[in-house]
Amino acid sequence: MNDQLNATHDPNLQSWIESANDPQTDFPPQNLPYCVFLRDGVRRIGAGIGDRILDLFELSAAGLLPSVLTEPLQSTCLNALMGADLDQRQALRAALCGLVTDRKSALAESESLQRRILVPQNSVNLELPATIGDYTDFYASLFHATNVGSMFRPDNPLLPNYKHIPIGYHGRASSIVPSGMAVRRPSGQLPPAVEGAAPTFGPCQNLDYELELGFWVGKGNRLGESIPLSSAEAHLFGVCLLNDWSARDMQRWEYQPLGPFLAKNFASSISPWVVTMEALQPFRCEAFARPEGDPQPLPYLTDSRNERSGGIEIQLEVWLSSRKMRDQQLPPTRLSHGTFAQMYWTAAQILTHHASNGCNLRSGDLLGSGTVSGPLRESRGCLLELTWNGEFGRPVPGNQRTPLALPSGEQRTFLADGDEVIFRGWCERPGMRRIGLGECRGMIEGAI
Amino acid sequence: MNDQLNATHDPNLQSWIESANDPQTDFPPQNLPYCVFLRDGVRRIGAGIGDRILDLFELSAAGLLPSVLTEPLQSTCLNALMGADLDQRQALRAALCGLVTDRKSALAESESLQRRILVPQNSVNLELPATIGDYTDFYASLFHATNVGSMFRPDNPLLPNYKHIPIGYHGRASSIVPSGMAVRRPSGQLPPAVEGAAPTFGPCQNLDYELELGFWVGKGNRLGESIPLSSAEAHLFGVCLLNDWSARDMQRWEYQPLGPFLAKNFASSISPWVVTMEALQPFRCEAFARPEGDPQPLPYLTDSRNERSGGIEIQLEVWLSSRKMRDQQLPPTRLSHGTFAQMYWTAAQILTHHASNGCNLRSGDLLGSGTVSGPLRESRGCLLELTWNGEFGRPVPGNQRTPLALPSGEQRTFLADGDEVIFRGWCERPGMRRIGLGECRGMIEGAI
Repeated sequence: MNDQLNATHDPNLQSWIESANDPQTDFPPQNLPYCVFLRDGVRRIGAGIGDRILDLFELSAAGLLPSVLTEPLQSTCLNALMGADLDQRQALRAALCGLVTDRKSALAESESLQRRILVPQNSVNLELPATIGDYTDFYASLFHATNVGSMFRPDNPLLPNYKHIPIGYHGRASSIVPSGMAVRRPSGQLPPAVEGAAPTFGPCQNLDYELELGFWVGKGNRLGESIPLSSAEAHLFGVCLLNDWSARDMQRWEYQPLGPFLAKNFASSISPWVVTMEALQPFRCEAFARPEGDPQPLPYLTDSRNERSGGIEIQLEVWLSSRKMRDQQLPPTRLSHGTFAQMYWTAAQILTHHASNGCNLRSGDLLGSGTVSGPLRESRGCLLELTWNGEFGRPVPGNQRTPLALPSGEQRTFLADGDEVIFRGWCERPGMRRIGLGECRGMIEGAI
Repeated sequence: MNDQLNATHDPNLQSWIESANDPQTDFPPQNLPYCVFLRDGVRRIGAGIGDRILDLFELSAAGLLPSVLTEPLQSTCLNALMGADLDQRQALRAALCGLVTDRKSALAESESLQRRILVPQNSVNLELPATIGDYTDFYASLFHATNVGSMFRPDNPLLPNYKHIPIGYHGRASSIVPSGMAVRRPSGQLPPAVEGAAPTFGPCQNLDYELELGFWVGKGNRLGESIPLSSAEAHLFGVCLLNDWSARDMQRWEYQPLGPFLAKNFASSISPWVVTMEALQPFRCEAFARPEGDPQPLPYLTDSRNERSGGIEIQLEVWLSSRKMRDQQLPPTRLSHGTFAQMYWTAAQILTHHASNGCNLRSGDLLGSGTVSGPLRESRGCLLELTWNGEFGRPVPGNQRTPLALPSGEQRTFLADGDEVIFRGWCERPGMRRIGLGECRGMIEGAI
């Protein structure tokens, strides 16, 4: 980390764009997340600041950004920028930060430039930020894995490999959609009512969300080459919120022996803002402390930097708004809240493991963390855990049999048509300026 | 099927390109598989004929192909052509067939055109034919699923879902490589030697191939919409050979509960020729007859057309050449041979199931069939089955304890460094001209 980068984290930085100084904004000048938005029918790369977007195509065309990045910045997706060198990424961040904080910057002083470059966020549609070559989903929360395992294998909740290997599997790239797009309830084979009977085909009855963080791959690696843990962080570009929608009944029937498939690939929603690893720097923390007696990871998954600063303190929340709640003009209700700092495997470990067999990662690939759940009931990241598979918990400590009640008087085991699920994420720390990830929203439409 | 299409299957068709009349060629005028090849550093779309490639960019620029396809044919990959309408695909096939069989065609009569358009196959490199958005692998052979299940769950070889649901899972698109590219032996976590001990990290010791057929998706479907079985065939564009390289030791340790991951995604090899569904038309056959007592598939996976002609008679072979065999100038030895007609689930059922939850397929997506194994020992499509997990079979009928011997005096349980695996595939039927799929080759390089 260099001085130029440090300066962009200064909590005293203020912007001449007033909305960026609002203490509640997700996008102060210390954040500057990237996005892709539609302007006059063309995809443009942008950066969020307060309630505006900086049009980086125009800013680059005006000669106000590092010229080495002209091609990536004038592209229609973030893949090329994600693949840029670390020092170029940092130089871009410094340039953007200067433009929005320096009252004497070329942008601050020219109203005509501002008209061309500052776009109100609420006037445009945000698109997927990158062309996702491959999407991989992990299972990095020990609490989630243990909860789910407890429901289906009470005597043996955690499989023997879990604490040695960051479990992951490939997901579907084509059905990843940006926040705000409706999600249709999938139909599929539902498990037989009694063992040995035939399955049925129909709309999923156990539709769930999963609260995850998505990591965007920066520079890739070549096929056949691995990425040592010591340089894994340099291959991460940024993060988003990720809703790994899950059809639990379909999953239960189909997942043996090759893993989840149609239970997951009907849709995954992501927040459109890419909050960079540079912006997250002040919120790094120690990796999760492995419980006493847990095995040490194998050497390729161990190094001191990862232990010291492999974690990230990101606060995460799940909110729900039902159709009835909206009819009654009730605001969304919070279902859970937790922190990403409690994940058993770090993002760097996940990435290094992924490439350890020589699998080539490419810029713009998306790695899901797996459901972010913590040790408490209120920090469980999906309905399967919150409602204990619809049974509202077994009568053991920590698993109260409390139905999930909504302010409208409704109850939920799994999602109903018309439910909107909203994820929020942000970082805050004493002495630092709060930054946010924005939102990831998705509303359930009825099956065809 | 129309008359124009029927005419392209006429076994009496001869070409003025002499090599296309060789009875042993994979590429007579009845085949005309598509490919992408590198010419002067630029990717071009081509069609195989005898030992030549027709450069379809040049042929289209010369005004000799349907003008509605100019843009797809002048592209650098097959995706757009794969997404073309069925009648356009058939018109292109008819035009190509006419150009190479009619001695009075514009191409037959002009040597200067021929110089521009007819490229010797051995003078160019063949590339991946399409940009693969998503790659999905299935498990459609009952014999393979039963064999593998028998090794690991002798009392319960076949899981209860198998005969109801075409099991599939997502694979890795980035590491799909064309035939001929070397494949590096992956390293990874290997299972603990005794239960409860720690795993180790090192080169895979149980490296295997899997003989599969790959199906290229033609026209896609929109997210949230399914594809009825009655129109599934119209969404298939063509086939290739697929080697789903597998690290069995890594797989055994990592695959619970989310499926195979690093055991598979280090590389998958495909043959570069896309043999179209139109070319395969004369070799369609009844779907595999379900054994007496098997459940009928659910209605969305059943229709009379699929039963009548959902199968394809494709002969498939696996050959191996070890380094020592090459040193001794011994030719490759055949390890197995079988037919694709024995798959439990048809390609149409696989595709319909994939989209049944609304998952969107895109032109150029690749669907792997799963290992093609038949009922006999000689028709087992991977070493895991052929050597019965390295134990050379248990003393039960059909599982002789016969080591896998090579002509060099070597034996194999799994693949050794320097082994080259060669898949071949072709169709033949009395009264029809034989057509071939070409080869899929890959040689194992030592781990780093």
